Amino acid sequence: MLSESVRIRLDLGYEGTDFSGWARQPGLRTVQGELEAVLARIFSRTGPAPLLTVAGRTDVGVHATGQVAHVDLTAEQLASLGTARRSPGVEALARRIDGALGARRDIEVARTSLAPAGFDARFSALWRRYEYRIADAPAAHDPRRRRHTLWHPAELDLEAMNDAAEVLLGLHDFASFCKPRELATTIRELQAFRWERDEDGVLVARLQADAFCHSMVRALVGACVAAGEGRITAGRVDELRAAEQRTSEFKVLPALGLTLTEVGYPPDEELAARAERTRARRDSENVA
Amino acid sequence: MLSESVRIRLDLGYEGTDFSGWARQPGLRTVQGELEAVLARIFSRTGPAPLLTVAGRTDVGVHATGQVAHVDLTAEQLASLGTARRSPGVEALARRIDGALGARRDIEVARTSLAPAGFDARFSALWRRYEYRIADAPAAHDPRRRRHTLWHPAELDLEAMNDAAEVLLGLHDFASFCKPRELATTIRELQAFRWERDEDGVLVARLQADAFCHSMVRALVGACVAAGEGRITAGRVDELRAAEQRTSEFKVLPALGLTLTEVGYPPDEELAARAERTRARRDSENVA
Repeated sequence: MLSESVRIRLDLGYEGTDFSGWARQPGLRTVQGELEAVLARIFSRTGPAPLLTVAGRTDVGVHATGQVAHVDLTAEQLASLGTARRSPGVEALARRIDGALGARRDIEVARTSLAPAGFDARFSALWRRYEYRIADAPAAHDPRRRRHTLWHPAELDLEAMNDAAEVLLGLHDFASFCKPRELATTIRELQAFRWERDEDGVLVARLQADAFCHSMVRALVGACVAAGEGRITAGRVDELRAAEQRTSEFKVLPALGLTLTEVGYPPDEELAARAERTRARRDSENVA
Repeated sequence: MLSESVRIRLDLGYEGTDFSGWARQPGLRTVQGELEAVLARIFSRTGPAPLLTVAGRTDVGVHATGQVAHVDLTAEQLASLGTARRSPGVEALARRIDGALGARRDIEVARTSLAPAGFDARFSALWRRYEYRIADAPAAHDPRRRRHTLWHPAELDLEAMNDAAEVLLGLHDFASFCKPRELATTIRELQAFRWERDEDGVLVARLQADAFCHSMVRALVGACVAAGEGRITAGRVDELRAAEQRTSEFKVLPALGLTLTEVGYPPDEELAARAERTRARRDSENVA
């Protein structure tokens, strides 16, 4: 019994400014590093330090509101949750982690739950959603937004940005928008990409894809900003995409405006099959 | 000519988390301290280091989006702006300050302008507006808001909060809501106080008064939260206010949810008279 492991799903968010990204790295403050250190403390008496697997391995400075991860606990570790004072079970683990994360409050685990059979935070995921925020009007330059919104010096043309976003939709080789990685495919399905102005006047792009390759969201929004400044047309964006080569006609925007907002999974009975298919097909690419 | 001084108005904002409030204090990072250090550098060759006067001397951890300050420059200092490379005048001073403030980006001077005759950022002000933000639903617990929004563990009753806010309106002695200071009056006119839920589900209180005494906004919103939790009625809030004594029936809420959003001034021709009246009437109380 004690050798069987139990998978826990974590739903969490973070304000990425003070992190060197998600992935654990020696000597750097990372989200995975902070969380695994806390888990190691919580389970120090009951077996090996638990390791996290994540849906979206976000880059330096990128935020998340809807990140998903999983961790496997031994039956003994699971049992230790049931008996700990003030912590009656798996659901209370979220509060224990948040309490142990301390005063900085830039990570928050919203929920911990028993994962359904076959669930893998990374490989079961069907799609990822990101948003990118740009304050292009001085009135929207609220300093409270500064850490998660790009300041842009001049007003952008929302319609032109949406025209550019639209030509990028669909199943394509996004090599023009991806930081090249050896042996990694850059074929992705961009399922949604739309800009809106929120009630505070901030431009918000919302994007969804099966997965994004490295720097892809920041390059896609960069192409739209070039269109919004009137520097390139939607037609030209389409040509640049079709060329499947990196270009200097638009910029890769800074990480600070980017947030992972949601990860989608199939119904429980399809989780295992989905994970198997994804694992077979791809390697190490769900990075934004 | 060189001995005459010229008054400059600064419109600015800051994310207060990493500041020990507005007011300069030796050894602590404060908004005034950072700004005056930058001004001293900009004007190091042309006379005395300029000192700031502010409309709302915000407390430790309080934010501002619509703060107003003034600074007096000598004619020589003013002239130095006109000739500096890339800085053709008073309007460009804002960008020079922002550039000199460095990478932390938690202060932003939005505008610098020649102040009209008789203008005093503090004593000419007619009213101050603040907002207080509370995320009472887990869905609103976006970690990007964590530094400027209070997390509340359970849903609050918006209508009960507005009932409580309404009984507090008007000209009263707000001693029940003010941190006592010797010889200082606690009579204030609360001109507006209303709670709303924004599009993200965050509860936002907006308050306006001629001025607020120390901790007053945070105590007023604390009384409303007690009402929103069903712990006290609007009638009881009214009684507590009328008692003109500090109470433990509600809490003074933490600074992090509080933002100074706007300062109101009379038409230019009334600025000097207003400043004179205010100066005569009060001493050192515009602190929130």
